[in-house]
Order: sequence, then C-alpha cells, then structure tokens
Amino acid sequence: GDNGAAPQVVGVLPPAAVYQAAANAGAAKAAMPFGKTVLLGVVAGAYVGLCAALLMTVGPNCPGIGQSNPGLAKYITAAIGFPFVLLMILVCGAELFTGNTAMLPAAVYKNWVGSYLGNALGCALGCFLLLNSGLMPQFSNAINAISVTKISYSFKETFIKAVMANWFVVLAVWQATAAQTMGGMFIACLSGISAFVAIGLEHCIANMVFVPLGVITDVPGVTWSAFFLNNLLPVTLGNIVARALCMATVYSLAYGSLGKKVWKQ
Amino acid sequence: GDNGAAPQVVGVLPPAAVYQAAANAGAAKAAMPFGKTVLLGVVAGAYVGLCAALLMTVGPNCPGIGQSNPGLAKYITAAIGFPFVLLMILVCGAELFTGNTAMLPAAVYKNWVGSYLGNALGCALGCFLLLNSGLMPQFSNAINAISVTKISYSFKETFIKAVMANWFVVLAVWQATAAQTMGGMFIACLSGISAFVAIGLEHCIANMVFVPLGVITDVPGVTWSAFFLNNLLPVTLGNIVARALCMATVYSLAYGSLGKKVWKQ
Amino acid sequence: GDNGAAPQVVGVLPPAAVYQAAANAGAAKAAMPFGKTVLLGVVAGAYVGLCAALLMTVGPNCPGIGQSNPGLAKYITAAIGFPFVLLMILVCGAELFTGNTAMLPAAVYKNWVGSYLGNALGCALGCFLLLNSGLMPQFSNAINAISVTKISYSFKETFIKAVMANWFVVLAVWQATAAQTMGGMFIACLSGISAFVAIGLEHCIANMVFVPLGVITDVPGVTWSAFFLNNLLPVTLGNIVARALCMATVYSLAYGSLGKKVWKQ
Amino acid sequence: GDNGAAPQVVGVLPPAAVYQAAANAGAAKAAMPFGKTVLLGVVAGAYVGLCAALLMTVGPNCPGIGQSNPGLAKYITAAIGFPFVLLMILVCGAELFTGNTAMLPAAVYKNWVGSYLGNALGCALGCFLLLNSGLMPQFSNAINAISVTKISYSFKETFIKAVMANWFVVLAVWQATAAQTMGGMFIACLSGISAFVAIGLEHCIANMVFVPLGVITDVPGVTWSAFFLNNLLPVTLGNIVARALCMATVYSLAYGSLGKKVWKQ
Amino acid sequence: GDNGAAPQVVGVLPPAAVYQAAANAGAAKAAMPFGKTVLLGVVAGAYVGLCAALLMTVGPNCPGIGQSNPGLAKYITAAIGFPFVLLMILVCGAELFTGNTAMLPAAVYKNWVGSYLGNALGCALGCFLLLNSGLMPQFSNAINAISVTKISYSFKETFIKAVMANWFVVLAVWQATAAQTMGGMFIACLSGISAFVAIGLEHCIANMVFVPLGVITDVPGVTWSAFFLNNLLPVTLGNIVARALCMATVYSLAYGSLGKKVWKQ
Repeated sequence: GDNGAAPQVVGVLPPAAVYQAAANAGAAKAAMPFGKTVLLGVVAGAYVGLCAALLMTVGPNCPGIGQSNPGLAKYITAAIGFPFVLLMILVCGAELFTGNTAMLPAAVYKNWVGSYLGNALGCALGCFLLLNSGLMPQFSNAINAISVTKISYSFKETFIKAVMANWFVVLAVWQATAAQTMGGMFIACLSGISAFVAIGLEHCIANMVFVPLGVITDVPGVTWSAFFLNNLLPVTLGNIVARALCMATVYSLAYGSLGKKVWKQ
Repeated sequence: GDNGAAPQVVGVLPPAAVYQAAANAGAAKAAMPFGKTVLLGVVAGAYVGLCAALLMTVGPNCPGIGQSNPGLAKYITAAIGFPFVLLMILVCGAELFTGNTAMLPAAVYKNWVGSYLGNALGCALGCFLLLNSGLMPQFSNAINAISVTKISYSFKETFIKAVMANWFVVLAVWQATAAQTMGGMFIACLSGISAFVAIGLEHCIANMVFVPLGVITDVPGVTWSAFFLNNLLPVTLGNIVARALCMATVYSLAYGSLGKKVWKQ
Repeated sequence: GDNGAAPQVVGVLPPAAVYQAAANAGAAKAAMPFGKTVLLGVVAGAYVGLCAALLMTVGPNCPGIGQSNPGLAKYITAAIGFPFVLLMILVCGAELFTGNTAMLPAAVYKNWVGSYLGNALGCALGCFLLLNSGLMPQFSNAINAISVTKISYSFKETFIKAVMANWFVVLAVWQATAAQTMGGMFIACLSGISAFVAIGLEHCIANMVFVPLGVITDVPGVTWSAFFLNNLLPVTLGNIVARALCMATVYSLAYGSLGKKVWKQ
Repeated sequence: GDNGAAPQVVGVLPPAAVYQAAANAGAAKAAMPFGKTVLLGVVAGAYVGLCAALLMTVGPNCPGIGQSNPGLAKYITAAIGFPFVLLMILVCGAELFTGNTAMLPAAVYKNWVGSYLGNALGCALGCFLLLNSGLMPQFSNAINAISVTKISYSFKETFIKAVMANWFVVLAVWQATAAQTMGGMFIACLSGISAFVAIGLEHCIANMVFVPLGVITDVPGVTWSAFFLNNLLPVTLGNIVARALCMATVYSLAYGSLGKKVWKQ
Repeated sequence: GDNGAAPQVVGVLPPAAVYQAAANAGAAKAAMPFGKTVLLGVVAGAYVGLCAALLMTVGPNCPGIGQSNPGLAKYITAAIGFPFVLLMILVCGAELFTGNTAMLPAAVYKNWVGSYLGNALGCALGCFLLLNSGLMPQFSNAINAISVTKISYSFKETFIKAVMANWFVVLAVWQATAAQTMGGMFIACLSGISAFVAIGLEHCIANMVFVPLGVITDVPGVTWSAFFLNNLLPVTLGNIVARALCMATVYSLAYGSLGKKVWKQ
C-alpha cells in the first residue's frame, strides 16, 4: 500500500517497549489487592478448566490420526484448546501464576501466592464442573493418557520440561504485549502455547486439572502424592525459573535497569 | 516494525475498558424500545436458523472423519456454522438472549423478555425456511443425532453444561468487545462458540432450532415436553447463571462498581 | 496490549453506522450513469465466471473426500472460489445485482436493470472464455452435478433457497461494509458466500454461469427453458426479497428512517 | 467494537482510490531509469525461481492426494509457493512484467521491455541455482508434468488461458494496492495467484522457469522452439491483453480519465 | 470500507522505507555493546533450540503423510516450528546471525562475530535442555533424518542451498520490517522460513542444533568434522553471501546510497 498522503501507523511495539510494558504490567500486578488477585486467579483457573474440556474433546479423540501421524495428533491437541485460555486471560483480564514475569521484590511474592492459590481454586471449580457435566466419557482418553505421562518422568526431566514450557508461555505473553490487535494477540498465544503442549512440556496450572482428574477417576498409579512430588513441585519450580531468569532477567539486561548498570550506555 | 517516526496505535481494549464497554452496551440495550428488541431478537434467531443449516450440512455429513477421528469431526461441526452467527449478530446488530451480560435492574428484564421472545420467533422462522427448502435430507443426520442428545442428560448435567456453554459465549462477546477489528471479532467468536459446540454444551437459543426440528420430523423420543422440561428449562437457567454470575458479577468486582465497594481503591 | 500512552483506534463500524454506510452506498449506486452500471455489471459477471473456474476445478474434483465426507467436500467447494468474487467486487469496484441492498425508489430500479443486464453479459463473457480455454474436461464434474441440481427443485423450494442465499450474501456485504480492513472484508465474504454455496442455496448470477454451461455442453435434461422457468425466475425473485426485506427493511426499522417513525425516538 | 470515544480509522482504499493509486504507481514505473527497471526485474525473476522451488517441492509430491482428490492437490500446489512471490515483489519492491497495469504511452513501453528482460534474466539465475542445488530429484515430478502441459494446448487456448491468468494476477495487484496492511496484501496475493495456478492458467514469467527446466532436463517433447512458439508467444500476448484491457481500460472508464470523457460527470 | 469521514491509515511500509528501516536497524546493531550482542545472540540460539523441539515433534512424526504425500509432510515440518523462532526474535528482541542484513563496515563485523558466537552458545544451551528433557525418543526420527541429510551434499550444492536459504530468511526479515502489525510479521516469517525448511535448504544456526544432536546421539556417519567441513563452513559462507549480496547490495542500488551514485537521480 503506497499511499503517500495517508498517515503511516504502527500496530506493534518494538522490543524495548515490550520490555517496558511487561515491567509496567508487573508493577500493576504487585499493587493489586490480595483478594482481587485471588479472585482473578480463580477466574484464570476456571478458564483453564473450561478450555481443558475442549482440549480433551478434540485431539485425544482422534485415534485414526494418532496411529498413522502421531506428530499431527499432538499438534491438533496443542492448537485446539489451550491457546484460547491465554487469549481469554489477557483480553478479558485474569491472573495466571505462570504468566507473571516480574522479578522478585516482596510485593511480587504476594501476587505469586495470590495467583497460585486462586488458580488452584479455579482449577478445582473447573474439575467440579467437568465431573458433573455428564461428559466424563468423552474426556477419559485424555485423562488416562495425560495424567499417567505427567508423573512418569524423573525430577530433573520434569524440572527441565517445566523450564522449557514456561519459557514458551512467557514468550507468548511477551509477544501478546507487543501485539496491539486481537489477531496479533492470538498468534502470540498460539505460538507459545501450542508449542509447549505439542512437545509435551509441563505447566503447573494446566496440570492442576489433568492430574487431579486422573486421581479422582482412579487412573492406575495416579495418586495425590505422585502428583505433588513427581509433578507439581518440580514443575512449579521450573516454571518460576523460566519466567524469572529466562525472560525477566535477560530482558532487563537487554532493555531495562540491569542493562543500564552492565552496559553503561 | 520499529518505525520511530510513525505513531503507535492500539487496536484492542485493555480489560478494564472491555468491562466498561460491556456495561455501556448493557445500558443501551436496557433503554431500547421493547418492540425494537423483539425485532432485533427475531433477526438474531433467524441468523441462528440460517447458520444451523450450514452447521448441519458440513460436520454431521462427514462419516469418514467421524468414525476414525470423532474429536476432529466435532471440531469441524463446531467451527463451521455457528461462529458466523455471533459475528453477524455483533457486526450487523441483533439481540441474542444469551449474549446480554448486563446485571439485574428492572430495565434489563424487559430486554431479556424481548430478546428471548424475539429469538424464539426468529428460530421458528428459521425452522420454517429449512423445512420448506427441499434440503431436509441433508439435515437429517444432524437432526437425528443432536435432538436426541439434547434431551438425554439429567437436569443437573444439562444445567451445568448450560453454565459452561454460556460462559464460553459471554467470553466470546467480551473478547469481541475488546477487538476493534473484524478479524479480531471473528477470532473472539470462533474461540468461544467453537468451544461450546465441540464439547457438546447447551445453548438455549441454538436448541430452539435443533430440537424442534427433531420433534417436527418425528425423531423417536423427541417430544415437545421432553424439549421444554429436559432441555429448555435447565438450559435457560444455566445460561442466565453463567452470564450474570460468571462474567458480569466477577468483572464488576474486578473492574466495576462492585469492586469499588469491595477493594476500596 | 495495554499501552496507555498510544491512542486507541477503532477499525470496524458499529451496527448503526454500517446501516448508514450501506444506505449511502445505495444512494451512490442509484446516481450512477446507466452505461457505467452496465459496464461495472459486466465486470462483476466476468469475475463470477473467472472464479467459477476455480470453484469447478477444486471441490468437485475431490471424489475421495466426497465419498467418505460429503459435508467437507461441500465446504471445500464453497470456500475455494466464490468468496474471492465478492472480495474482488467490493475491493476493486463492480456492480453485483444481488449485492445492492437499497430499497425501492425509481432511481434504484435503473441500477437493478443495469446491473442484472451487465451481470448477464459478464457471465456470458466468462462462459465464452471457459468454453474456449481447453479446460472444459476439468469443469465437467462440476457442470454435470450443479446444472442438474439447480433445475430439480420445485418453484417454492427454489424460491426459499434463493431467499436464504441472498440473505447470506447481503449479510456478507453488510459485514464487509463494517470491516475497515482487507482481512476483515475477506472474513465477511467468506462467512456469507461459503455458507450459501455449501448448503446448496440459489444465487441468480452464479447460476448464469453454471446452468448455461450445462445447456451448452448438453447435460441431459438441462435446457434453456428449464433454466429460465425452474431456476432463474424463482431465484431472481427470492434474491430480491432477501435483499429488500430481510436486510434493508429490517435495518431501516432498527437504525434508519423507518425506525424513526416507528419507535419515535 | 462500539467505542464511541476512540477515533475510527480506515485501513483499505475505496475502489476509486485504488484505481488512482494503481495509476500513480504506473507513472512512477514509467519514470524509473531503464537499468534500475532491469535490476528490479532480475530480482522479481529470481523470486519466481526461488518460490518455484517451494511450489515444486510440496504440491506435485503429494501423489496420495493427487490420486483420490486431484482438485485438492491442485489447490495445494497453487496455494503454497507462488502467492509468496507476489507478496515479496510488492512488499520488498521488484518489477514484474505481468503486474504493471499502466496503459500505453511510450514511457511505459520502456518499463515493459526492461521488466521483461530483467524477469527473463532473473528466471535464468533461479534456474541456475535450482540446477546446481542437488535438489533436482525433488523437482522432477513437477517439471515433467508442468513443462509438458504448458506446450500441449492450441495457440487460441493458450492465449485465452493467459488472458484469464493475468486478469487474476492484476486483480491480486489491485487488491493488494487497496490493502494497507501486510495481512490484507497476503489475502490479495493468495486470492489471485492461487486461482490462476490451480486452474492451470498461463503466466509468461512463471513459465520462464518451468518450461526451460523441462528443456534442460530433457523432458520428452519439450524443446526451446515449442516453448517459444506454443507457449511464450501466446502467453505474453494474452497477459498483455488482460492487464491493458481487462483492468486498466475498464477501470479508467469507471474511475479515471476515460470515464470523465464518456460519462461526462 | 468506503467511509469518507474517517481517516485513512497505512499499516505497511512502502519498499523504499523498508530498505531505510532495515539500514537503520543495521546501524543500531553495529552500535550495540559486544557483550549485549552476545547475550541477545544466546537468546536467539535458545529460541532456535526450543522451536527445534516443536519442529522435531510434529512433522517428522507423521509417517502416514510422509509415505503417501511427502511434499505435504515437508510443508508441515516447515510450517510448524521455525516460523515462530523468527517471530520471537523480531518481536521480543534477539540477535540472529543470519538475519543481520547490513553491509560491511568494521562495526558490523563485531556484530557478526558476537551474534555468531552467541547463537552457537544458545544452540548449545538448547541442545542441553533437549538432551536432559527425557523427550529424546520423540526427537529421534527427526535427528536421524536431518543430521545425515545435512552432511550428504557436495560443498557447491551446500553453498548454493545456503544462498537460497538465507535469501528466503532475509526476505522474511525485510517483509516483517514492512509489516507494522503482529499478524503481518507472522505472515512474513511464515513465508520465508517455511519455504527454506520445506525445500530442504541450509541455515547455519538451525544446523547448530540438528547436526550436533546427531553427533551426540551417534547417528552413523555424523561426526563433528563432517559437520564443520561438509556443512557449517559452506553454509555460513552461503548465508553471508545471500544477506550481503542478494538483499543489502541489491536494495541499496534500488533505494539507497549505491543507487544514488549509479542512477544519478
């Protein structure tokens, strides 16, 4: 479109402005009342539960594709369901523990505790709805496969998968911050979320739906203690490392206050 | 696009502004003349009928996919047909009972009654067109399967499926309110509508097309009383709960007048 | 994108403005010289012919999909070919008989006659190109199936299918008017056009390509008189009813001059 | 998005402005130094060669789809590869002989000669790269099928296929001129380019890659003289007619200087 | 959208402005502290490693598609995984050796060395994560096939494949620079990256993940010396030629300082 007369506009933030917007969002989260953080955490958890119902309905009920093209089946599972969660959270407003990329002052810990607690309550609400919807038969393929897989890796492997997962999630949040349109925000969410789900990485809040449903429906070997020790603990730690180190620290060095000290520009 | 000289523009509303825009839209709906609400309700119902014809033509006539990959068949049914209804309603203007998220003053009840009545009339018009189009054979797979399913669950299950369905619908409306472009509005509609249809949740206005067509075409077991008691009653109640509680109340607490009282900010 | 400093912009018209823009476009059409209307009608008809070649090449030559998943085959036929026609017409400029939604003053009749005549001439030009391209073998599956189907329904059924078809077409035009971006206009065209083609509804200008090609290539039972009496007459009437009544009258009541009289706001 | 406070913006040109922008672009091309036209023609030709490698890798190597659903195979071949060429040319800047829609003053002939010459040189460079890449085995299915097809039609049929092809190409350029976003430009390119490739129409510059590769790799019956006489001559003539007559003349009558004389408005 | 009152805006840069923006970005890169370049190079390399995990999970694990439609399998591998890398790099900010298109003053060499070194370190970090994730079995199909292919061509063939690859990569960067929206940037990345991956071209940084994983997992014939001599050396040279000659020099001639000397305009 070469239209000299009409003004040029820019609809995406450049990298340094993305960092600054992410830092500002973190400050706003830190200043939020604890109760409101919990409330918006419940909302986010409920969205995870609702969209888990979509994820479990579509991809894991494609045995034809799964047999001959398991890679494609994984991507269908990854693309249809969870990318919408992050979009809903970012567009409508909600607090997702893994999406908060701010660094470590005291005020942020309050946000972490509130969002983690709220997310857990919201996931429990989501599980309650799914368990009472009469639709559990259509979720059983997914629950059986996913809940067992989640507790079957070593602590180290699970930790590393959690670091990788949340690196993708925070990259999605960062890109959605850059995008100034709904379409751009969706591409951002799709890119990061579909990647972590397809590869089979670990996200502590998503697991609060899949593994408890496995425990409650008596999937063999899936117990509360296996969930907490083999999965939730290493995953939560790995998710925190990714968001604090891989994104917040690195980009503060590149575009923020750490960088001003180090590069002396 | 790092183009320092050109102005940055934002094409999506932030969460608090989405809440405010949704609240404003609710106030405008409450102030609308009753007859106009009914008229625009008829329009919305007719769009449901028209797009139901598309839904019934495509997805339910894919037996090959349905046998080997039922999850994918559900998503095709969900993605092709009904997401366009909500887009038409929001872009061209129409009143959908389940989309009005405003809370409970008297003026709103008038809108609820008018849109529910209009939607029912519009769905009847839609059914009339489909029944006289000569195309009923191509709709029969869908009518047989859907109308029976809709009356086969318990009151509690149907109620819960209706809560989940309209949570998704209102999330779609909310996101479409945030989106300031047609592309963004389509993504919003697709995300929420495809989710509720694929999972098999319950939407009272959509059911006003599928189940009556089952009654009229003598699908075994599908009767008017089964429709009203097993389906329309619990679904209408569940849809109302979702829009009033899950969205309007929660986001008023987060960004609106309820929040101002509770968090005292 | 929460970027307080940058200005918010809106890239889609709200419903009342869409109505006003459609009314303005109708007034401009009515004022156009008759010869220019015919010329731009020829252009539109030629685009129908060109894109019919795409439609006939792709979808109807997918027998594998058609056997096991006829619903999907219909949607492929519907999505690849004709949505581009409407986009070309709206973006580059052309006069399509079925797309003019203005109501009934004398000046508008001139536009109707001019665009109908021009569309017929343009479709004849399109047929001439296809018949002399050496590509007729690849179009024969489509011509055989479509031309027979078009003349096989009763007058009433064909009329109703024409009402439904043009309701979708005008909904597409209306949404494209709301969209202020090319991407949005494409979604608008895709939503309405793919719906009417997939369901198998009736559009008088499109039929000016498919059925004449059936007559010329001696498809059994497809004659000029069958085309005019069984198809073109009821379809043209149904198309007119849809655009004049379903859209123009309804939205004038909701947002225009009729509404000002009726609701006295 | 009903957001009264924020300003409405328009991101697509209306038809008359598209014509004017296309005319302005033609004037700028006419004023370009001859050597620069040749250079940018070489660039465009090289892009054709690069993207031909993509086209030949994907679609023609799908024998499974090609056997049961040849229509779909044609569309895959058409959608993956060449739409990107036009996007690269329009976005990054390059001169494509078939894309210049300006009418016939002397200055324009210079642009025609320069771009045709440059395109031929660029296609030769593209062929050189492909022939020396070690990847010829993966291109052989495409080269064998396409190069024979291109020389197998009569002069009249090839000429008509060339008129239709470039009508689509220029419609793509015209729509891309209207689009003021990258997404819109891609839709424009996809609509026109995928149509002409899927139908099997004729584009003189694209053929400068496919047929010479057939000659060089000794595809039976594919000779330089067959290329020049059976294909390049009628295709070049048909391409010129489409761009000069179907678009430039028609839209000058509708929105430009010819129209001012004819309609006396 | 014909909406005369609202202002027209342009959301994509015209070619000459794209060149200028790319040149400005190159100057900014040249002025960056060396340590920061290495840091942002590590980030880019890590993104390559993360997205390689997605690429290896999906496409290469589709044996059903690969047998009957190898072209489609190649495109799935190409479209799902690496286009996201370039988007992450451009949107969040990172330094990719192959993406820097600036020409050859001394300051640029520093950027080249820093980004190449950083990319190598980041790829090593990526490999470390993949090797310790417990997910290596799902990557083995890809590693076995890709690492052997990469070392099996002659120096000349590999060099030419590297020229073609980076021509596509830089075309993607250039188009993303033109795009002023996230959606447009994604189309830019998808067009160039999917092309080079599907065709099987050579990108030195991507190969720093695939081939070392082949060496480490003892793929027969894949050795460090084969990697460095048969692949990394010719690929790095070819990548440099493409970015320096095919884009920077050509467009400086067309729109920049070289052009001002040559065409004397």
